[in-house]
Amino acid sequence: MDVTIIAVGTELLFGQTVNTNATYLSKNLNLMGFDVMYHHSVGDNPGRLKNLVERSLEDTDMVILTGGLGPTQDDLTKEIVSEVFGAELVFDESVYDELKEYFDERHRHMAENNLKQVYVPEGATIFHNGNGTAPGFAIERNGKYGICLPGPPREMTYMFETHVRGFLEGLTDKKMYYRILRTIGIGESDLETILLPIIDKQVDPTIATYAKEGECSFRIASQRDTIEEAKAAVDAMISDVDKIAGKYIYSYDDEELKAVVVRKLKERNLTIASAESCTGGMFASNITDVPGASGVFGYGFVTYSEAAKASELDVSEDILSNYSAVSPETAVAMAEGVKRVSGADIGISVTGFAGPDADPGRNAGEAYVGYAYGDKKEAVKFETRRADRSWNRNFFMLMMLMIVNEILDGKR
Amino acid sequence: MDVTIIAVGTELLFGQTVNTNATYLSKNLNLMGFDVMYHHSVGDNPGRLKNLVERSLEDTDMVILTGGLGPTQDDLTKEIVSEVFGAELVFDESVYDELKEYFDERHRHMAENNLKQVYVPEGATIFHNGNGTAPGFAIERNGKYGICLPGPPREMTYMFETHVRGFLEGLTDKKMYYRILRTIGIGESDLETILLPIIDKQVDPTIATYAKEGECSFRIASQRDTIEEAKAAVDAMISDVDKIAGKYIYSYDDEELKAVVVRKLKERNLTIASAESCTGGMFASNITDVPGASGVFGYGFVTYSEAAKASELDVSEDILSNYSAVSPETAVAMAEGVKRVSGADIGISVTGFAGPDADPGRNAGEAYVGYAYGDKKEAVKFETRRADRSWNRNFFMLMMLMIVNEILDGKR
Repeated sequence: MDVTIIAVGTELLFGQTVNTNATYLSKNLNLMGFDVMYHHSVGDNPGRLKNLVERSLEDTDMVILTGGLGPTQDDLTKEIVSEVFGAELVFDESVYDELKEYFDERHRHMAENNLKQVYVPEGATIFHNGNGTAPGFAIERNGKYGICLPGPPREMTYMFETHVRGFLEGLTDKKMYYRILRTIGIGESDLETILLPIIDKQVDPTIATYAKEGECSFRIASQRDTIEEAKAAVDAMISDVDKIAGKYIYSYDDEELKAVVVRKLKERNLTIASAESCTGGMFASNITDVPGASGVFGYGFVTYSEAAKASELDVSEDILSNYSAVSPETAVAMAEGVKRVSGADIGISVTGFAGPDADPGRNAGEAYVGYAYGDKKEAVKFETRRADRSWNRNFFMLMMLMIVNEILDGKR
Repeated sequence: MDVTIIAVGTELLFGQTVNTNATYLSKNLNLMGFDVMYHHSVGDNPGRLKNLVERSLEDTDMVILTGGLGPTQDDLTKEIVSEVFGAELVFDESVYDELKEYFDERHRHMAENNLKQVYVPEGATIFHNGNGTAPGFAIERNGKYGICLPGPPREMTYMFETHVRGFLEGLTDKKMYYRILRTIGIGESDLETILLPIIDKQVDPTIATYAKEGECSFRIASQRDTIEEAKAAVDAMISDVDKIAGKYIYSYDDEELKAVVVRKLKERNLTIASAESCTGGMFASNITDVPGASGVFGYGFVTYSEAAKASELDVSEDILSNYSAVSPETAVAMAEGVKRVSGADIGISVTGFAGPDADPGRNAGEAYVGYAYGDKKEAVKFETRRADRSWNRNFFMLMMLMIVNEILDGKR
């Protein structure tokens, strides 16, 4: 089924908001086997919006609109879509009760204009809004579908997950199953190259790669008559993929690397402490972004200056002067130092040139990740060949997480 | 002049990429006095793309396309736009020379399909690409304009800034001047409320607020016959705004708060060291994200556990047990400790509950920012009334920057 996604709101056309709703919906609709043909954004203008909805229903089988469902006079989406589908707006008791409860719970007065939200198109399927006041709905005429969802991403995604996904699944006889695998340590084009034998012969399941800064994930999806068949097909392809790319895969369930690391540390009853130079605290802030990180992480050091490396981590003057602050020796000494000072089981460190500048004769993008765990200690060199400070810092932080993950998997 | 922005690329419709190009272009076009009426995204399909370009030229005066200018067979934007504008594609000597230089510099071979990029529509204004191989162009017929830009944001924004902005300015007699002011410590709706007397009577200059997580900025723009008149009008409004909201404004030139803080530390010849609990290193990583931060920042501590607060910062057992780890007393002791240990001029600290959980009887979103500078020491309480971990952490980090900025301005 072909779909058009329309975002309604002048804030998009002013460049004040990025249209992440279209991205979210497209990703999910594609995973469910729908074909998204167009995204449109338009302001709060009734004539232009009506025209665009009508055109979209000529172009495609379904139009999904986000935004313009609020209580103000500017919010016109429901009125326009009802008009295009030839449906009257009628008072809905259940929406009224829910809205009243929403305001009562918050000890707030329900304003006159909120009553506008209680009217819904006759014959529509109503989607209740768990995160706000505007209900969404789906309406059908002659095999063409119109779906209206609220604009705030928190409300839209909640409504999609709890109501719309099920509604859309009901429109197709096929069942969809997918898994998202995450990799680290390999770029998107290299990953695609090694997976080419599988990608080339794909029909179902399909395989698609997604690059994020320094990371790459891919989705394996199957659409079959039963969920069991789809699951079996996906699992079979995962085992093929594993043979080729297994060593780069750190999650088979779309779990973030920092969450994987914190989870494994907890499972293995280990603690970690960090000593960062060029990443300036990004490793610590990523680890502590995971709820419950306090069980495995107590100490982080940002030793940005040589003096700090010496005074806080006991990196010796000899090492700093003989090998320089950006060297495998310094990285190892930092990791040993932070392990000793903190009493943690694992010490992890990084020192490097994030860029845009580097010391004379050295290049931005060179860094050493050090670790100390039990009697083991080692430094691993990374070279990005880039001078992009933000990119490098993020990449080195990911490499620290990757090394910790390898330690926890017994690979180091 | 009314404008439509079209993004070309299946990756948008698959939900793999967010259309940030449309946001960037809209913001800039609006600042220049153009009216953006529609955003569209469409895949690499010649029929649909041609139809959309034709429709857009009926709907509006100008269509700006991003993407689909690459060397592969899928890249069709240039061909379609030339067809719609009735222009032949002709070999361009200067584009060829530039492309050859691009490959020579990188010691790379110019592939056969790159030659496709050397053909441009006859009569078009060519925009050279400083960050890639695909040139952009503008073409005009009967008062309607078509502008084609590359899809990768780095190439598109570079081309916009170096070529397209000047081209567009040439289309209007009016001159545009604007300033972007940044605030901290006030929410968007409160800012709008206090500025209402100015907002209500605005004609030119215009004033528009933009909210970012925990921060708010606003743009003051004027379009007059001369740049001097526009500048004078903007400056006059800035002085009105200053009377009402001056205490929240930290930049009159869209400078980020972390960059403002690093710049002022350098100017005043001061160093800073940080001690973070709930933000887990976000302050340090933001400060060190500014190139040249090493001149003012050498030491950062992430004392996530009570043991770390005691051992690294000498926060006494008495304070921790009498007042708890999340208290003004602990915040001040952390700030004094990090100042003493590092020898920095300013010690800044934070301790709080980022959420989603908090200690029994306490609420997520409560935090204390402490500082020690000279003989002064103080803790400032912040309460977000939110349980959103990421939001709180980012907000507390911003509050640390705000407090440092106030110290550097002599307000604390």
